[in-house]
Amino acid sequence: MWSVKRIPVRPGLSRLSNPRTISTRPGPSLILRSPVQTQPRPRILKTNCTRRLAFQRLLSTSIDASTRSTFEDAMGAVGTGRVNTTERLAALRKLMEEVGVDVVVVPSEDSHYSEYLAHCDERRAFISGFNGSAGCAIVTLKDAYLFTDGRYFLQAGQQLDDNWELMKQGQPDVPTWQDFLHKNIAPKSRIGIDPTIIAAEDAKEIQKNLAPIDSVLVPLEKNLVDEVWAGDRPAKPHNPVFHLDEKYSGRSFQDKVSSLREEIKKENGKALVVSMLDEVAWLFNLRGSDIDFNPVFFAYAVVTPQRAVLFIQKSQLEESALQYLGSAVEIRPYGDIFDYLKSLAHELHLESTAEAPKILVSSKASLAIVEAITPKGSEVPFHKTVPSPVANLKTIKNETELEGFRQSHIRDGAALARYFAWLEEALNEGKEVNEYEGAEVLENYRKELDLFKGLSFTTISSTGPNGAIIHYSPDPKNCDIIKKDQIYLCDSGAQFLDGTTDVTRTWHFGTPKPEEIRAFTRVLQGHISIDTAIFPSGTSGFVIDAFARRALWQDGLDYRHGTGHGVGHFLNVHEGPQGIGIRIVLNNTPLKPGMTVSNEPGYYEDGKYGIRIENVVLVKEATTPNNFGDKGYLGFENVTMCPIHTKLVDASLLTPGEKQWLNDYHKEVWEKISPLLQNDTRALEWLKRETVAI
Amino acid sequence: MWSVKRIPVRPGLSRLSNPRTISTRPGPSLILRSPVQTQPRPRILKTNCTRRLAFQRLLSTSIDASTRSTFEDAMGAVGTGRVNTTERLAALRKLMEEVGVDVVVVPSEDSHYSEYLAHCDERRAFISGFNGSAGCAIVTLKDAYLFTDGRYFLQAGQQLDDNWELMKQGQPDVPTWQDFLHKNIAPKSRIGIDPTIIAAEDAKEIQKNLAPIDSVLVPLEKNLVDEVWAGDRPAKPHNPVFHLDEKYSGRSFQDKVSSLREEIKKENGKALVVSMLDEVAWLFNLRGSDIDFNPVFFAYAVVTPQRAVLFIQKSQLEESALQYLGSAVEIRPYGDIFDYLKSLAHELHLESTAEAPKILVSSKASLAIVEAITPKGSEVPFHKTVPSPVANLKTIKNETELEGFRQSHIRDGAALARYFAWLEEALNEGKEVNEYEGAEVLENYRKELDLFKGLSFTTISSTGPNGAIIHYSPDPKNCDIIKKDQIYLCDSGAQFLDGTTDVTRTWHFGTPKPEEIRAFTRVLQGHISIDTAIFPSGTSGFVIDAFARRALWQDGLDYRHGTGHGVGHFLNVHEGPQGIGIRIVLNNTPLKPGMTVSNEPGYYEDGKYGIRIENVVLVKEATTPNNFGDKGYLGFENVTMCPIHTKLVDASLLTPGEKQWLNDYHKEVWEKISPLLQNDTRALEWLKRETVAI
Repeated sequence: MWSVKRIPVRPGLSRLSNPRTISTRPGPSLILRSPVQTQPRPRILKTNCTRRLAFQRLLSTSIDASTRSTFEDAMGAVGTGRVNTTERLAALRKLMEEVGVDVVVVPSEDSHYSEYLAHCDERRAFISGFNGSAGCAIVTLKDAYLFTDGRYFLQAGQQLDDNWELMKQGQPDVPTWQDFLHKNIAPKSRIGIDPTIIAAEDAKEIQKNLAPIDSVLVPLEKNLVDEVWAGDRPAKPHNPVFHLDEKYSGRSFQDKVSSLREEIKKENGKALVVSMLDEVAWLFNLRGSDIDFNPVFFAYAVVTPQRAVLFIQKSQLEESALQYLGSAVEIRPYGDIFDYLKSLAHELHLESTAEAPKILVSSKASLAIVEAITPKGSEVPFHKTVPSPVANLKTIKNETELEGFRQSHIRDGAALARYFAWLEEALNEGKEVNEYEGAEVLENYRKELDLFKGLSFTTISSTGPNGAIIHYSPDPKNCDIIKKDQIYLCDSGAQFLDGTTDVTRTWHFGTPKPEEIRAFTRVLQGHISIDTAIFPSGTSGFVIDAFARRALWQDGLDYRHGTGHGVGHFLNVHEGPQGIGIRIVLNNTPLKPGMTVSNEPGYYEDGKYGIRIENVVLVKEATTPNNFGDKGYLGFENVTMCPIHTKLVDASLLTPGEKQWLNDYHKEVWEKISPLLQNDTRALEWLKRETVAI
Repeated sequence: MWSVKRIPVRPGLSRLSNPRTISTRPGPSLILRSPVQTQPRPRILKTNCTRRLAFQRLLSTSIDASTRSTFEDAMGAVGTGRVNTTERLAALRKLMEEVGVDVVVVPSEDSHYSEYLAHCDERRAFISGFNGSAGCAIVTLKDAYLFTDGRYFLQAGQQLDDNWELMKQGQPDVPTWQDFLHKNIAPKSRIGIDPTIIAAEDAKEIQKNLAPIDSVLVPLEKNLVDEVWAGDRPAKPHNPVFHLDEKYSGRSFQDKVSSLREEIKKENGKALVVSMLDEVAWLFNLRGSDIDFNPVFFAYAVVTPQRAVLFIQKSQLEESALQYLGSAVEIRPYGDIFDYLKSLAHELHLESTAEAPKILVSSKASLAIVEAITPKGSEVPFHKTVPSPVANLKTIKNETELEGFRQSHIRDGAALARYFAWLEEALNEGKEVNEYEGAEVLENYRKELDLFKGLSFTTISSTGPNGAIIHYSPDPKNCDIIKKDQIYLCDSGAQFLDGTTDVTRTWHFGTPKPEEIRAFTRVLQGHISIDTAIFPSGTSGFVIDAFARRALWQDGLDYRHGTGHGVGHFLNVHEGPQGIGIRIVLNNTPLKPGMTVSNEPGYYEDGKYGIRIENVVLVKEATTPNNFGDKGYLGFENVTMCPIHTKLVDASLLTPGEKQWLNDYHKEVWEKISPLLQNDTRALEWLKRETVAI
């Protein structure tokens, strides 16, 4: 699944000002199913194909049906999906007057800068009625503004009631919400914000711009929207947290903590605050299910040379997990992080000089964290912002994790083969299968697989024109029948104890049109070009991105998303900092052996069809006859095992090398997947046919 | 010819810290030959193959013989090329005490941030004895430091005498020269610099860092090194300046000035200072020969909505040029620019508020220019630094210039064919031809061509291992015999009234080794990949650079220079801001129709051979079956017409498309060049053979 990654928002350089830098976010999260098994085995992650996925179509202004209905259920919307916010705003303004602020900012973030939100963190959606993935609400005592970007102008226009003014960021003369605070809000204003849900770096920039007009950013002690939401606010998830066996993680948490301590030392740090949920999960070899699709749990961690402290609701930890952590990890209540940090500087004997060792935080750490670290009145901060050392360690998978990726992808390939074979037969028999039902069949095949823990994101099961809506997901109540004479695009993935999958295949069960074949072949050439690329150590995914587009460009075609994202190991399906794409920030991260990345060029013809071919590849050292520069050369190892639809390939466009690649790939797929299909003759025959050499 | 472009040096982000961002610069410039014809026809640019070229080998630490001998001639060096600087330094220190400074900085720049310097501007080489292209001298009352980068450690070590300490920038714990000023020079120092030869942007950064230690940068009224150099300093060139007919330039200077005024308006400017020499030349359709190979002359220009002022030594202007400019351009003495700027702010009624219209300057404008613009005591500057609007207009060639490029390259191709045919026959006949003699034969063939005005850079004529020295040029007194059994690399170019050429071909006159064939074929594949690339409008040369390297990378090969530089129209052979390469700054400039760029991937095997295949291509709109994104797609039109040595091609490595490209190219070369070779049977037969389809 492609999704452009979130980047920290900076006033004046808003991600909204450039469609290439948008963030993605699921809509309102949903009530979790009860676990299939609770104890003592690790439980299955709760997933639901109806859930709105985080795959946002760039520049799209359409609202798909599932988005709206889900939103209506959760937010009490009526009619066109519009929520009456009059009472909510009145209650909020009463609270604003009580705490003495003129303005309140309600951003989209949760306290951990998560890509996907738990429902209880959808504050901006609650207060404004607008539930798109990107946006910020600014409420004054008289007015209310909702800032969003071009993808959401239509949706926001439909969802906002008359209390709100829609601020179309990116349009001429419309400021970013950050600039609005100092350009449009009256000087000498007190602007309230929950300091736990804004990154310190962003807050700093805003404060700098407010100073000249004598306005101040006021960190509030409680979240006023939560107060208004009160009893109706969904509970914060507190699902069981289990220990991921080292036969899957490949490394003890003690060893990880030890590596981390070396990184802290290198940065002249005396401690590190870990605030991202997947980073905490990775560090301690723990997994949970507080957020859909992402096997994480609400927690913070602090690592010092002597101590490793995990801030979590202790009751979430399964007994085996507690035993695993033993005495090496101090468990403290989740909410104690701020008080702990307040005493930490004192405990570590930090000093307020520029060169003195600091407490390290990542650029995504909240204002609340940073303010807790530095004693009031200190001129020089006690924290230092660094690229997250946990993210940098986590993204280099160890041999166990890499082997887990390989094995989980083989198993996953069996489910894919069974589903696609089933679907083809069903359509050939004239059966009516809708997009949602298809996704359910696929999920059921996956559920039978060893080590399956849930889906890694909402399945994109889309027929014809729906495939061109990049963030489409079928609404069970209102989705299309899969048509035999249209292209069918299916992007799906699963969480396994030994790895995470993410695969897209595009099929045509009838007779494809010549332009569909041509576009598919161009996408395939881009896919092969990435798969076979060799590049010097030190090369970033920004530099090789054009390989994926070259063949499409020859025909005047392109796609409006990146080519590849990092993939977590039984963690978030989107994982940084590496990636292949057109966002310049990707040029900061060289691809390194052990990294994972998706390879997913596509082409989308509005109103007609979507094409995407996605595999997950591992970065590895390449064998080359020379080694110019002496730094070594790198390449990719593909792990996704599913046929690529040769019916959609125009072999005459391929070079001999490309043809060979396709045949070699299909041979490998056959060899690895066919042994798993011995009980499914239909799938076996389908696989045989789909892997025949061209 | 490839040369990594100069970028503005900023303290803390020194170009010396990254071998990818080095600048190039010829060694000491040389005494110009007297013009072949003086009046009234435009004269032939003076060129000399012995001159040290600006093509610097990245990371090389070797000194080629020609560099040293030329330097010795010019600087009075003895023995190993070491200059005794004791007297020079003593004289300089006496002057320092007189003007009251503790330190003097002697950077490499001239007043126009030129890539190539006139000899009189080689101040750093004079004072230090070190004449590499990159470096900066810092002289205190007691010590003297020469800062340079890895390419020059060996050369500087040999050339510097005991008065100097070599500062190896890029080595651990060695600061940049900018950082040295505030980190290593005693606080409260007065640091003198000639404000005409440091960019204002760079000076600002230095001043910012000096403030906390109470040191100051003192702009000196006279250049102290020039005072020391005194009578021995070569005269500033004042060669005739002629008018380039509009049948070559394609556009009147009035029209250019008018476009420029629109750009000034867009930037909220009230005037523009043009400080780069090629920009002044382009703007007024004038050409000169004050700098080797670059048909430019010493001048500044200022354009306001009402006036266009050219600062130049009036006697340089030929009568016809004066007539051409007529009353539309005010001519003022070159040195008057600063006084003029001092009165300009007053004349234009500028105000010192942030939003008020400003006088525009480029980031390369000197401190002296910027200081002259803003009245002393003004809190807000009266100038605004912008990307040069002249450079941005100049780099988009008009139809006349593009046609001139095509035609001049065809003529140039005839000279190349005659030379390579002659050389092959000579070697086959067992004649001894050295590298320098070869270059002379080529220059003589070029001299016979219509509209020829000189070479565009020193010819690189290199046999075997010399080809791997990227900045090699043969010393007439001491160069190698061209060997039949070694690869021969020839990179050369010429200035014509209708265009500028720059072409590299690589030959083997005997039996090439398999590894030479393989490397050549990989380079050719990269060359073809750039030539045939199609990309969406808005794409930069940074994004497509990897196309040129992909085939080499497959074999673990690469090259340590960019892939292409802009080429001026009868102007500097290196022209910005566009380029194809690995320097991230290139990502700021999308390729646009009408731009020119070289396409010159290569491979260099130290001690053995060098391979480079270089054509000049024009950016043009591409015809594609689709237009996804609606912005149009672009591609290249090749204009260089010279066979690519098929003897060095392994056809089995090529795709059918690549083979077709090569055959089509050779067909075109034959058709365009053969008519010009009717009087040279040897060349005609050679061309026939070298353009046979594979």
